[in-house]
Amino acid sequence: MKHRLLLVCLAAFALSIPAAAEDGYDLWLRYRAADAAAYPELAATVRELVGGGGTPTLAAAERELSRGLNGLGGADVPLVAAPTRDGAIVFGTPRSSAAIAALTLDLGRVGPEGYVIRSTAVNGRATTVIAANSDAGVLYGAFHFLRLIQTRAPLRALDIVSRPRTKIRVLNHWDNLDGHVERGYAGQSIWDWHKLPLWLDPRYTDYARACASVGINGSVLTNVNANATSLTPAYLEKAAALAGVMRTYGVRVYLTARFSAPMELGGLKTADPLDPAVRTWWKAKVDEIYRYIPDFGGFLVKANSEGQPGPQDYKRTHADGANMLAEVLAPHGGIVMWRAFVYSNETPTDRAKQAYDEFVPLDGKFADNVLVQVKNGAIDFQPREPFHPLFGAMPKTPLMMEFQITKEYLGFATHLTYLGPLFEEALESDTLVKGKGSTVAKIVDGELHGYKLTGMAGVANIGADRNWSGSQFDQANWYAFGRFAWDPGADSRAIAQDWLRMTFSNDARFVQPVLAMMMGSREAVVDYMTPLGLHHLMDTGHHYGPGPWVGNLSRADWNPTYYHRSDANGIGFERGPKGSGATSQYSPQAAARFSDLKKTPENLLLWFHHVPWDHRMSSGRTLWDELVLHYTHGVEVVSQMRVSWAAQQGRVDAERFAQVAAFLAIQEQEARWWRDACIAYFQSISRRPLPAGVAAPAQPLEYYQSLKFPYAPGHG
Amino acid sequence: MKHRLLLVCLAAFALSIPAAAEDGYDLWLRYRAADAAAYPELAATVRELVGGGGTPTLAAAERELSRGLNGLGGADVPLVAAPTRDGAIVFGTPRSSAAIAALTLDLGRVGPEGYVIRSTAVNGRATTVIAANSDAGVLYGAFHFLRLIQTRAPLRALDIVSRPRTKIRVLNHWDNLDGHVERGYAGQSIWDWHKLPLWLDPRYTDYARACASVGINGSVLTNVNANATSLTPAYLEKAAALAGVMRTYGVRVYLTARFSAPMELGGLKTADPLDPAVRTWWKAKVDEIYRYIPDFGGFLVKANSEGQPGPQDYKRTHADGANMLAEVLAPHGGIVMWRAFVYSNETPTDRAKQAYDEFVPLDGKFADNVLVQVKNGAIDFQPREPFHPLFGAMPKTPLMMEFQITKEYLGFATHLTYLGPLFEEALESDTLVKGKGSTVAKIVDGELHGYKLTGMAGVANIGADRNWSGSQFDQANWYAFGRFAWDPGADSRAIAQDWLRMTFSNDARFVQPVLAMMMGSREAVVDYMTPLGLHHLMDTGHHYGPGPWVGNLSRADWNPTYYHRSDANGIGFERGPKGSGATSQYSPQAAARFSDLKKTPENLLLWFHHVPWDHRMSSGRTLWDELVLHYTHGVEVVSQMRVSWAAQQGRVDAERFAQVAAFLAIQEQEARWWRDACIAYFQSISRRPLPAGVAAPAQPLEYYQSLKFPYAPGHG
Repeated sequence: MKHRLLLVCLAAFALSIPAAAEDGYDLWLRYRAADAAAYPELAATVRELVGGGGTPTLAAAERELSRGLNGLGGADVPLVAAPTRDGAIVFGTPRSSAAIAALTLDLGRVGPEGYVIRSTAVNGRATTVIAANSDAGVLYGAFHFLRLIQTRAPLRALDIVSRPRTKIRVLNHWDNLDGHVERGYAGQSIWDWHKLPLWLDPRYTDYARACASVGINGSVLTNVNANATSLTPAYLEKAAALAGVMRTYGVRVYLTARFSAPMELGGLKTADPLDPAVRTWWKAKVDEIYRYIPDFGGFLVKANSEGQPGPQDYKRTHADGANMLAEVLAPHGGIVMWRAFVYSNETPTDRAKQAYDEFVPLDGKFADNVLVQVKNGAIDFQPREPFHPLFGAMPKTPLMMEFQITKEYLGFATHLTYLGPLFEEALESDTLVKGKGSTVAKIVDGELHGYKLTGMAGVANIGADRNWSGSQFDQANWYAFGRFAWDPGADSRAIAQDWLRMTFSNDARFVQPVLAMMMGSREAVVDYMTPLGLHHLMDTGHHYGPGPWVGNLSRADWNPTYYHRSDANGIGFERGPKGSGATSQYSPQAAARFSDLKKTPENLLLWFHHVPWDHRMSSGRTLWDELVLHYTHGVEVVSQMRVSWAAQQGRVDAERFAQVAAFLAIQEQEARWWRDACIAYFQSISRRPLPAGVAAPAQPLEYYQSLKFPYAPGHG
Repeated sequence: MKHRLLLVCLAAFALSIPAAAEDGYDLWLRYRAADAAAYPELAATVRELVGGGGTPTLAAAERELSRGLNGLGGADVPLVAAPTRDGAIVFGTPRSSAAIAALTLDLGRVGPEGYVIRSTAVNGRATTVIAANSDAGVLYGAFHFLRLIQTRAPLRALDIVSRPRTKIRVLNHWDNLDGHVERGYAGQSIWDWHKLPLWLDPRYTDYARACASVGINGSVLTNVNANATSLTPAYLEKAAALAGVMRTYGVRVYLTARFSAPMELGGLKTADPLDPAVRTWWKAKVDEIYRYIPDFGGFLVKANSEGQPGPQDYKRTHADGANMLAEVLAPHGGIVMWRAFVYSNETPTDRAKQAYDEFVPLDGKFADNVLVQVKNGAIDFQPREPFHPLFGAMPKTPLMMEFQITKEYLGFATHLTYLGPLFEEALESDTLVKGKGSTVAKIVDGELHGYKLTGMAGVANIGADRNWSGSQFDQANWYAFGRFAWDPGADSRAIAQDWLRMTFSNDARFVQPVLAMMMGSREAVVDYMTPLGLHHLMDTGHHYGPGPWVGNLSRADWNPTYYHRSDANGIGFERGPKGSGATSQYSPQAAARFSDLKKTPENLLLWFHHVPWDHRMSSGRTLWDELVLHYTHGVEVVSQMRVSWAAQQGRVDAERFAQVAAFLAIQEQEARWWRDACIAYFQSISRRPLPAGVAAPAQPLEYYQSLKFPYAPGHG
């Protein structure tokens, strides 16, 4: 009776709440009441919360557990000082909790950030213990425990031990001080610089909660295309205010360092990293930053790339530049993340080779607190790239992975593209540098080369849009990045399933088909945009939509025609020994595979080889037919996704259902546009008929070439 | 008992709802349950809703009434086909409702958009009738009825008759196609052009609801600094999708017309309004627009101002330009709103005189479907300006008022500045052109000159920020604009009180002090920024903060020094017969007042006169002392506002309370900055001591002059 009345008044209350209640703002931290009948062990194992301690971070863990347990349980879980009955939740460190100190948890295994979740007895009461060596570890464990409930996992006989396999797990925000987000498709920057430091938007706290919930422990607030103004006192005061919010959640603040800042802010005539005045300026600046932000994480630097200043302007190396900054950060415990995405002002013979050529000779020359941050592939966040040849080639230099979470090249915010499989594919790639099993994951987590510093960066897809990421499903990419940063060996399907259950529903009729959608979604994008190893066919500048015909830009390597090289004979970029030789940057074993057209995986074929249109594929079809069928299949998958989603009506709230449905309609339209435009263009070159039964493009090639999108979002 | 349990479960539920529930998104359409004990007549008079009809707009009225009555009543108000008991709400037109058709309501009085709300008997049941001649009128009446409940007004013996006093009540969105809002301080544009037309954000519906709730019946979607791209098919399709949402709520869509569009889009060599090819191009374009948007409202045009193209480029007049567009819009029922804010490329003797000089000679030359849109003052939306001399000077040309709701010059989003008193002061200004009582309001509403077309425009303060307007209290300015557009004779205090009760609370301990804050807030801004008739002292470009010292810009009339003209002898812009002669643009009676320093109101003194520092003010103090005391008083008022607000803790929800408190802290800091910088600067010129007991500026003048804000929001 009481329960029914509760439902009645919840319904009445819901009527007076605007539709906003289910708009995606909650992310995966959605603590709606579980069906008690279907999940009885929740009520049995979660009866009271043992309050946990005086530090801000432990208080945050307590708030989160209270919020989560109250919400998920649908009733108040009392906060008590010690277990009074079976079903207590005790959390803390050996220092904060005598109960935890008294248990044998073997916390040495989990390091400074890991945690143990164990079902045990405390004071003779059946208790769930969430324990760690640090407050942040406790917070991570608390979020893990809530995840168990959110996904309706068993809650009895728990014995979970988890520790992060990388140390630096950071989001890179390409956010400008004017609020524009470069390659952002989720509205303006969430940092409201103008109103900082006095106004601390509650959103900052929710951002930090979301980061902590997946173990992200750093946030680079500013764009890699850096602005020296972010290092001025007025902006340091603002950044310090953000750091104050994030510190509680174990998230350290980093900034991007514009290499020429000593000239722009300090009035120096040079930014030469070996110039004593320059070094003095940076030392004073870094000391100043630490006065504002005592736990400042350090700098992320994009130098000598796409017009950014850098040490090469003074005939110094990347190592000279990085080490100068590292030296002044080291006394404070700060680090330098130096990007390997270099893009010099001269046109290279092969864009893919430049980073390797510039960085490998510097292996071993970087200071101990420098990481070199390497994109997953050698070009630029394409729907599919082979792993970057730097992985495995710099055993003496910690390489951290840079993934792009924001979908610059994978359909902006409106395409449902779950990136978990992309992350997993990159991390599972076998460099073979130390024999079979020398995966990128083992390089990133330090195992293969014994790196002391390790890390993973994700270019954030976060903005001021109500749903944070521009779409409901793009939240999954933020989530998955965090999970992979914690564990580069993670499973993308398991992550997707957790996310779906936490974000939408535990109803198997929902989870199963929507999980299938997610798992197939990235391959669909590859198919309708850049199948078989094609890359960088996007239209110029904004990268919105197809532009495979673009060949008139002033730099050869800005042109899609540079990358696909299609001609009457065939298509693809020959990177084997007879071509650019880029395959030689890989380990001999991997190079042997990629250099040989016959051994190259078909999904990377045109990345590594220029292949005749009539080349026989493993299917028995010609390359041309196969290409057309891939494009066509990609669209078909999206159409099927629309059908699958439509069947979910009623299983998710109306507002999020409608948004996803509308975005899938956009995706289908754009997938077809991609397919039709690419087929129309490549057919004008291959001069071959379409395979039987395949629809011709809806419009002539000229139509697709005429389309212009000057206000597409996210432009740099 | 039931009531207590309800409260308990509401509280429990609230715990599981994110803080978002009270973040300002609901605006003044906040339908939280009234305390039944304190407002018993609600339950007695609102028992059932009589469903009202088949049109989309009547369905919207029904949805709104259901939502509002259910929310405010805290229980389901059943929808029935006809009154079954006392306490029915019947709404509709004589066509949609036989019950209304049968009543004697004298609807002829209310015109096409007005409404009657009357307590009467229907089928022998005590009924409240909401009736109008049009569906939109019914919707307006429905919102009025909900407002009665929201403000806890009496609900018995109602006999409300309301009709709008202007016909065109439009918001002007200075929104660019890339999402940037010129002079916007509430985030990006709410129009997500990139995802239109397929994605219709629910926010569009809530925007239209809010507009309709105050009688706004038009929305100019695009910036007056216009972009021809908005007239291309791709964008017309997007605008049509928005029009489809807004139509239901009685809101027509308008666009800005870039005068050179025939050249940019049509490839013509000229945009000369008398050129036949140009006229043909515009006719075809307008016909095309009406195919997309059958009820398209028309064009808003900024021409020959601040670099925008216009008819003067071809030695044609504003009337030539406006009439060309009017001619092709007329067959479709469209109008032209032609802005009088002209700002030629040559520096004038007095900026304030230009609009009058250009437009008065054209009186009577505009087509019937043209309105000339005039800002409230002759400069540019300053904290205080005298009324624009065009009002009263163009009896044969409908002049519509342009107010700026967004606070470009009144503190951006963080200053609590209620603009109701500014609107009221402008509208109550007496032009004296037809003797005493020839108020601006009577010109705008058509009474004085018998205008057939009438209108009021407000430059919107709306953006993608969760709270719509950048701050909680800026919502009041959107609200007040709508109420004044409906009734230019409205009372700003009554409007503020309605808004406060609807938006926050009916608790008298809250309403009384916060209403006092609101009512004093605009004068406080005048005092700490530009007291005694000073104007345009803001820093260059972004207009953020003080810049009274700026005198080096390439155009004299861009410089604050041009406007305040302070020197060793005194301060102010002499616009009397011995000065620029701008006072002669007013009616002889008004001119006599403004030309004479002794008769000029002190709050406009330095607008009209250059006055010696030692001039005796009515207070007996010198002008210099008075100026300093005004600056000081402005800051004191803000400090008092902070104290008043702090006392409201617990009477409003925590989230909105905290945001307002933080913004008031920013406002106090910036008010002090304004005061200190202006006093420091003017003292460097007046060379006079501060009055006894007044604090010196905190920093030397050079400090204030050194501050730079390259990323202040809203820059053009």
